[in-house]
Amino acid sequence: MSEKMPIKALEQQLEDVISVKLKDQRIFRGHLTRCDMYMNLTLAEAEEMENEQILAKYGQILIRGNNILWIQIPE
Amino acid sequence: MSEKMPIKALEQQLEDVISVKLKDQRIFRGHLTRCDMYMNLTLAEAEEMENEQILAKYGQILIRGNNILWIQIPE
Amino acid sequence: MSEKMPIKALEQQLEDVISVKLKDQRIFRGHLTRCDMYMNLTLAEAEEMENEQILAKYGQILIRGNNILWIQIPE
Amino acid sequence: MSEKMPIKALEQQLEDVISVKLKDQRIFRGHLTRCDMYMNLTLAEAEEMENEQILAKYGQILIRGNNILWIQIPE
Amino acid sequence: MSEKMPIKALEQQLEDVISVKLKDQRIFRGHLTRCDMYMNLTLAEAEEMENEQILAKYGQILIRGNNILWIQIPE
Amino acid sequence: MSEKMPIKALEQQLEDVISVKLKDQRIFRGHLTRCDMYMNLTLAEAEEMENEQILAKYGQILIRGNNILWIQIPE
Amino acid sequence: MSEKMPIKALEQQLEDVISVKLKDQRIFRGHLTRCDMYMNLTLAEAEEMENEQILAKYGQILIRGNNILWIQIPE
Repeated sequence: MSEKMPIKALEQQLEDVISVKLKDQRIFRGHLTRCDMYMNLTLAEAEEMENEQILAKYGQILIRGNNILWIQIPE
Repeated sequence: MSEKMPIKALEQQLEDVISVKLKDQRIFRGHLTRCDMYMNLTLAEAEEMENEQILAKYGQILIRGNNILWIQIPE
Repeated sequence: MSEKMPIKALEQQLEDVISVKLKDQRIFRGHLTRCDMYMNLTLAEAEEMENEQILAKYGQILIRGNNILWIQIPE
Repeated sequence: MSEKMPIKALEQQLEDVISVKLKDQRIFRGHLTRCDMYMNLTLAEAEEMENEQILAKYGQILIRGNNILWIQIPE
Repeated sequence: MSEKMPIKALEQQLEDVISVKLKDQRIFRGHLTRCDMYMNLTLAEAEEMENEQILAKYGQILIRGNNILWIQIPE
Repeated sequence: MSEKMPIKALEQQLEDVISVKLKDQRIFRGHLTRCDMYMNLTLAEAEEMENEQILAKYGQILIRGNNILWIQIPE
Repeated sequence: MSEKMPIKALEQQLEDVISVKLKDQRIFRGHLTRCDMYMNLTLAEAEEMENEQILAKYGQILIRGNNILWIQIPE
């Protein structure tokens, strides 16, 4: 897989904090610990967010990639 | 399949208690007894949860992976 | 297909009574007579259920696997 | 394809009357004249049903399999 | 592809008038001029129908197969 | 790919004005400049239409094929 | 992949500003930095827009291609 693939931009963020927007409009924030080419990913210290407020804390979660709208990743 | 794949984080939890959020917003909690790469999985002593309350108990259930939003897994 | 696959837990229930929850929230109960890896399955003496009450009886039905949320199977 | 596959239970009903429930909750009843492994099928003398009443008659229809929830088939 | 496949019943109607019901509940009627195995198809002199009334005329349209619920075809 | 495939009817319209109806019921009109077998396509001088009125002008747009309901093409 | 493929029109815009309309009707605008054949793409200096107003700024985002309705690209 070429280094120029969009998914590579995600892989380069391992251990960084990312925000993941799901199709049901929920946002999860946490440290990216694993990801694959389907955008399946795991977050550590995962938090569910709403308007910059923390709604819930989940520890480690595995998000199924096909539910993801977009991912905010550090530059 | 590499040990770094997100789905491997699930496989490492066999027999542990996980919580599974479905696309219809229901949450199921139980002991993970089987899983595959599509996130199809079986839970033993499965409970349907709402606001930390138990809505129903189902014994063993098989959840179809494509309905899963995310899975909370122990760290 | 490994014996540890989730779908194998279903195959082991042939002839047993299972409950199948569909994406449109309907529940069907019946004797599992056939199933495949897509969770397509046939039930004999199939009943549509609501709150533990029988809504309708259908004899033999073939359920398309991609409509299934989860399946309650005997332990 | 093994004789034990769920779709085989459908193929055995060629010429028989079946009822097909679609995802938009409509029910069609007619003589099964063709079917394939995706559950694409044709019905002759097809009728659209509601509460056991006939809403409309269509002659021959081809139903796209991916819209099917379940099929009631004679035993 | 076997002559007994459901899609073959469609191919046999080339040039005939068919009615196509889409998932958004619209019905299109026209002369079938092309079709493929995904049920992608073109209609000539296509009309959008509601309760047997003509809502709009479109000339030639190409319908994407995955939107189709069912097709009424002459016997 | 056979010349009789429905998608070929689209390819024959390169540079012509087509109207594309999307699943969210929006209609886009423009000069077809590129298309592929998934119905991904680009329109030049693209306009969003409602009741024959122009709602917005977008210049060049790329439409993802899986959102397309149907395409009106000149005869 | 042929130079005439629709996705090629996107690849030619690397570094340019594009607008991406998602299925949930949100619009994102930013500099296209990566894209692949599924329309997965990354935007730098990404902004969420509504009626030509900026709703939010996200820095770098990765958009999952299957959520995209259409992309406005410079000519």
